[in-house]
Amino acid sequence: MTVTTVSDKAHVPFVSVENMMRLVLDIGVEEAIAQIVGYLENDFRRWPSFDKTPRVAAHSKEGVIELMPTSDGVDYGFKYVNGHPKNTKDGLQTVTAFGLLASVDTGYPVLLTEMTVLTALRTAATSALATRYLGPRNPKTLAMIGNGAQAEFQALGLKQVCGIKEVRLYDIDPAATRKCAANLARSGLTVVACQSAEKAITGADVITTCTADKQYATILTDNMVGSGVHINAIGGDCPGKTELHRNILLRSDIFVEYTPQTRVEGDIQQLDADHPVTELWEVIAGQAESRADASAITLFDGVGFAIEDFSALCWLRDALQTSPRYVLLDIIADPDDPRDLYGMIQRERLRMDMPQAVASA
Amino acid sequence: MTVTTVSDKAHVPFVSVENMMRLVLDIGVEEAIAQIVGYLENDFRRWPSFDKTPRVAAHSKEGVIELMPTSDGVDYGFKYVNGHPKNTKDGLQTVTAFGLLASVDTGYPVLLTEMTVLTALRTAATSALATRYLGPRNPKTLAMIGNGAQAEFQALGLKQVCGIKEVRLYDIDPAATRKCAANLARSGLTVVACQSAEKAITGADVITTCTADKQYATILTDNMVGSGVHINAIGGDCPGKTELHRNILLRSDIFVEYTPQTRVEGDIQQLDADHPVTELWEVIAGQAESRADASAITLFDGVGFAIEDFSALCWLRDALQTSPRYVLLDIIADPDDPRDLYGMIQRERLRMDMPQAVASA
Repeated sequence: MTVTTVSDKAHVPFVSVENMMRLVLDIGVEEAIAQIVGYLENDFRRWPSFDKTPRVAAHSKEGVIELMPTSDGVDYGFKYVNGHPKNTKDGLQTVTAFGLLASVDTGYPVLLTEMTVLTALRTAATSALATRYLGPRNPKTLAMIGNGAQAEFQALGLKQVCGIKEVRLYDIDPAATRKCAANLARSGLTVVACQSAEKAITGADVITTCTADKQYATILTDNMVGSGVHINAIGGDCPGKTELHRNILLRSDIFVEYTPQTRVEGDIQQLDADHPVTELWEVIAGQAESRADASAITLFDGVGFAIEDFSALCWLRDALQTSPRYVLLDIIADPDDPRDLYGMIQRERLRMDMPQAVASA
Repeated sequence: MTVTTVSDKAHVPFVSVENMMRLVLDIGVEEAIAQIVGYLENDFRRWPSFDKTPRVAAHSKEGVIELMPTSDGVDYGFKYVNGHPKNTKDGLQTVTAFGLLASVDTGYPVLLTEMTVLTALRTAATSALATRYLGPRNPKTLAMIGNGAQAEFQALGLKQVCGIKEVRLYDIDPAATRKCAANLARSGLTVVACQSAEKAITGADVITTCTADKQYATILTDNMVGSGVHINAIGGDCPGKTELHRNILLRSDIFVEYTPQTRVEGDIQQLDADHPVTELWEVIAGQAESRADASAITLFDGVGFAIEDFSALCWLRDALQTSPRYVLLDIIADPDDPRDLYGMIQRERLRMDMPQAVASA
């Protein structure tokens, strides 16, 4: 008796958290971020060709669940991501994420993956890309304000992509700084743990703020920021959550991902709705100026955008061409005769009744 | 050396197509549909408590990819579904689907599942529910017009839930009718293959149309439909795709799922935008009248709505409490310290270097 196994067409590559970690270790965190920068650069350069649907958010008292879809007409990607600040007290993650890439031509999924680790990589890659296009020449020193889950990725991305040699760490919680310093001890970076944001910023060419307080916080005050620096402000990423004093914004040339979203979620929610900003893709595509001169303060007000997830998903899909770090999931029904779904179920009984004839997925 | 395995919190139950088929075979198709009817009835009764986000569609020349989210404030569900009519000529499905259920309280996914088979069950369950509330008393005969992938499920659902004894089949393609008749041969239903839609409808108490032509088709003409019948028109489910002659609509009491969506996608796209319709939930909640009398024609203009998928996802989640038909997916990153994502990746190196110490997911 011939028993048909599940068709190849029904199989979608799935990257678990474990496999994602192993893939990143195979490639190296720094190299992975640098590779993703290449995908981001390519996609930012052709930004107008993307479908920029607003994220679809389901808000509740405790948090938010969002779907972030986008497409370039060839591939379609979306990320599921939640944000639940109260989760940490229950030993759960504030943010978890997974993502999917599909073929626009057939509608078939081609990749399902965890996206917590992948989002950390793409967020670091986005800051590195912004710094390369907007920051001062040959930056040597990064001030990393906020030493949580993103901090090491930011530092390593800027090391690999922009040549940063020293990272100066500050967090209101010294335990976070200790964790980050220990993790970066053998990275090749000179790591300096600082007692205050002011001390961390001293002599920094690039400042990245990635803090977690969900409030109108002022991580950086106006007098702390000197001329010529580049700031990646990536922790202010939802309404009511900002990091920089308004006066810093007023002194900066401001660059954003997607203006309508950043007006609501970014640090520029503190400014008038018509305050001039430049979209980063315009600089990358050669359609807008980068920093005016060596003394300008450039600010990348990063909130995260669906196209960045898309770039990261495409990087992962391509990386899997030469990596075994995935399994195949049987998530698409594929009857021999598309009109005979019922018959497909009935024929499954034959396989069920054959003890271990075919391994289960 | 202690090596921590992936945390339980990182594991999400996943139902593959194979496991879904086996679960349905364990329970029985008819019983599964009947159980889903119970979930649907409960959810339709509390319809106003659901967040009814419009579906998010990405259209292309070849088809559409949609995300259909909804939430009742406790659970959050969404379905990914594509529609690519040209797929069949390449041996692919026109429609594939998968779905997710998550906890609103934590944002954590609690179920990931194939939804091609599950959608077939919920679509049949929805017709059965509508027929029970709207149809004539003690219906005996179903005319099933369109004998594709949905046909057997529709017939078995109406048998189980409404007591249908005989099904009369018609399809423009006799091979589809033969397939359907063969599949239903041992179902306990009297099966009559008919040469025309007119013959199939003769003596029918309930008519279900589920045809696939993407055009303004007229599967039923006005003179074919007598008084007292109930029609489930479920194949007209997108703009430009209808099944019934306009005059039938004008003679019927029309019931829909969600009026704004059905005005665009359903058979009532042929009618004026203010033509009176009743939402099915209103009947189930006791807030609107069902059929006026035994001679009325009732029409359920079904297009499929996110809440129905939600009901089906909740049914599946509960069914898995007593079923082994799932595997656990490691899709959520769960570091011991939420702020130490980087350290989690580095510690994975220890596990990688231990040959087969811990089984891979």
